[in-house]
Amino acid sequence: MEDIFRHIEQHQQEAIDDLIRLCRLPSVSAEGRAIEETAELVSEMLRSLGFRSQILPKADGHPVVYGELAGASTEKTILFYNHYDVQPAEPLDLWSSSPFELALRDDKLYARGVCDNKGNIAARLAAIRAFQSLRGQVPLSLKFCIEGDEEIGSPGIEPFVEERRELLAADACLWEGGGVNWQGQPQITLGAKGLLYLEMEARGANRDAHSSYATVLPNPAWRLIWALATLKDPHENILIDGFYKRVRANNSQEKAAVKAMPAEEAHRARSLGLDGFLKGVSGLDYRLRHLFEPTCNIDGLNSGYQGPGTKTVLPARATAKLEFRLVPNQEPEEVLDKLRRHLHQKGYSDVEVRCLSAERPARTPIDHPFVGLVCEAARQVYSQEPIIIPSMAGTGPLHPFVETLGLPTADIGVGYPESCMHAPDENIRLADLLRSAKHIAAVLERFATQQP
Amino acid sequence: MEDIFRHIEQHQQEAIDDLIRLCRLPSVSAEGRAIEETAELVSEMLRSLGFRSQILPKADGHPVVYGELAGASTEKTILFYNHYDVQPAEPLDLWSSSPFELALRDDKLYARGVCDNKGNIAARLAAIRAFQSLRGQVPLSLKFCIEGDEEIGSPGIEPFVEERRELLAADACLWEGGGVNWQGQPQITLGAKGLLYLEMEARGANRDAHSSYATVLPNPAWRLIWALATLKDPHENILIDGFYKRVRANNSQEKAAVKAMPAEEAHRARSLGLDGFLKGVSGLDYRLRHLFEPTCNIDGLNSGYQGPGTKTVLPARATAKLEFRLVPNQEPEEVLDKLRRHLHQKGYSDVEVRCLSAERPARTPIDHPFVGLVCEAARQVYSQEPIIIPSMAGTGPLHPFVETLGLPTADIGVGYPESCMHAPDENIRLADLLRSAKHIAAVLERFATQQP
Repeated sequence: MEDIFRHIEQHQQEAIDDLIRLCRLPSVSAEGRAIEETAELVSEMLRSLGFRSQILPKADGHPVVYGELAGASTEKTILFYNHYDVQPAEPLDLWSSSPFELALRDDKLYARGVCDNKGNIAARLAAIRAFQSLRGQVPLSLKFCIEGDEEIGSPGIEPFVEERRELLAADACLWEGGGVNWQGQPQITLGAKGLLYLEMEARGANRDAHSSYATVLPNPAWRLIWALATLKDPHENILIDGFYKRVRANNSQEKAAVKAMPAEEAHRARSLGLDGFLKGVSGLDYRLRHLFEPTCNIDGLNSGYQGPGTKTVLPARATAKLEFRLVPNQEPEEVLDKLRRHLHQKGYSDVEVRCLSAERPARTPIDHPFVGLVCEAARQVYSQEPIIIPSMAGTGPLHPFVETLGLPTADIGVGYPESCMHAPDENIRLADLLRSAKHIAAVLERFATQQP
Repeated sequence: MEDIFRHIEQHQQEAIDDLIRLCRLPSVSAEGRAIEETAELVSEMLRSLGFRSQILPKADGHPVVYGELAGASTEKTILFYNHYDVQPAEPLDLWSSSPFELALRDDKLYARGVCDNKGNIAARLAAIRAFQSLRGQVPLSLKFCIEGDEEIGSPGIEPFVEERRELLAADACLWEGGGVNWQGQPQITLGAKGLLYLEMEARGANRDAHSSYATVLPNPAWRLIWALATLKDPHENILIDGFYKRVRANNSQEKAAVKAMPAEEAHRARSLGLDGFLKGVSGLDYRLRHLFEPTCNIDGLNSGYQGPGTKTVLPARATAKLEFRLVPNQEPEEVLDKLRRHLHQKGYSDVEVRCLSAERPARTPIDHPFVGLVCEAARQVYSQEPIIIPSMAGTGPLHPFVETLGLPTADIGVGYPESCMHAPDENIRLADLLRSAKHIAAVLERFATQQP
């Protein structure tokens, strides 16, 4: 493998060039920007490596870039799941450089999407190029499934995968992309939370009114605040009846894995300028809470006048972006039903709830042999003990790959704890890009030669 | 007086021309736009009618245009209070025509400020021009005090008036500008509520974070919502300890005046597309509540992502514009203290409160002779029984004129119930502009000749 690793290092500029091309396109799925161009570019990059690639429509949302490439062994196939879309770059004034132009500063690469998820596409292509250059071909068959809606909750990915079970059939899946922890240990993530992302809207009069009418006119901002305040209390208890009912207990392997994870909260608190965390958690409690607890988060609030100084106005509408992260075995549809019933019972039937995105939680069992193989490859590349994360705190469309395709699925990638994913100055370290490419290469090699 | 009234009608184009010039300048005090140009224009308009006019600095805020003009009798002086600043025009997309370009449609004039308050300046100048054209001079001495901060709470108007008691000395004050009700009856308003306009801000981490961290990171949007929800309950009770303590009982004359007012709520509900009002009030209850109750209103909410679709983000900050309307004898400083104590007691000391504006409530007693004179003049012009409003539901810097200068102060003007003050498509009816000019003229004439 050393020749492969050296090739990846010596050809780092090719990976950077891939990223320059990928990050230049502002493929913000929430705004539907540059989607077609980015899908075309990704498909073309796959074709240039010999993949047969197609851009497949998805019934709901943006197209998926599919690619397949036969390897030295065609008896085994690894499926890569990635996405070419990115989060919005706002607030733009907090970026140190233009978000859609790759910038290299202090051995770090900055751009919206450079970590989440374009850097991982680049790392995987770098590993493939190394095999092709040195061995003429990759060691086993590969498939890519690169979607364009991950950041808006992957609408329609479940039926898309269901309908293409044969096309996407594989033996294991390397998923989107994780990264190293504060100690530099590679993290191998096996699960994801589910998501229910809603917009809530309260309406009052048919137009903004002079605020002196607050005596008699309903104010939708108050209605929204009162309704939201019934959902979660200041002790972080989610108050929707039955919300926690389907949360399954975590098994001993999951808890042991979390226990083996190093403490990260001191680093994170410092980085975020905080003295501590919700409910004062630290150590194992912090990790158990972060990885295994469902959430109810406000992502946005919008009503009335928000400019400088004063405007005495009674707003005609108020909206909130409300998000739940769900853990096995919570179902987004069921939580939405319970929320609607809760609002009705509390007297807020007037507050409209629109579902913008829903995903189900999923986990690959820790004791699957593929997990051991990915860990072995990580030890070889990083010379550090890998960290198994039973479930990430975040969400991704893991469910169709784990459950519908039945694949053991591991998430490894180019990030590090200060990658600022979804935030201004998103970045990766160049060294992490190369290490992730090597890890991918090592997994491919081991999986190809592993005894069945 | 009939000659004066005819002159006002025949020269309506001059009043419209004044409004074209005044409304073209976007004198939004909240944004500090076009302030100097507008003050210069207003001062020049006064000078062109023979006023000695100066632009006086105010320690806090924008300059005040002052003007004085000797009349046939110099033994009596009426002081006009007006303002040349306007509310922001946003949301711009809801305007039918450009907000800073006077538009005439269906005998109505549309522009930001055409009612509040530039139309009233134009009406008063039209009355003055009529006297000057037909009689050579106005019947009594006049002063103008036209400020540039009314829409942001008139910062520093109290000390400004206090320091210029002699310059501003007069016998009565005609105030800013009211209008007719749905029935076309002229309304004479004698009081104003006080105001306390605040910005509340909750802060979390030093930057927006990925929303998966909602497990452990404090969310300032939640902090703000919980804090706000402690201030007022869904039954409209303001929950700040001692908030209602200084609210004085209304006297029998005040209640009788409100009883004499016609019902307006059916019109208003229809116009605003509502089925009813807070607490189901109607009739006398509606009016008593609207004119005499203090309020706690949310004028704006702002946090996190507000664009289309989803962005999974945990915001770094959340702000609200919060506003109290106060009634005699509530004091804004005391309410602010009580609010701060309330937040502290409820556990929300982390939510910062900034005072953006504070004004005290004031009322001229209904039985003052000047009130009777203004009513008589109204009967003459409108041929309708005038309506006395003991206090408007809104706020203005009435307190320094009523209390510091000791002037009986009546508020009459060009508006009507669908003037959309502070809202898109602000407008007045041309007929109301002329009637208000005549009413002003009739008050000047009567006050000049009234026996002391």
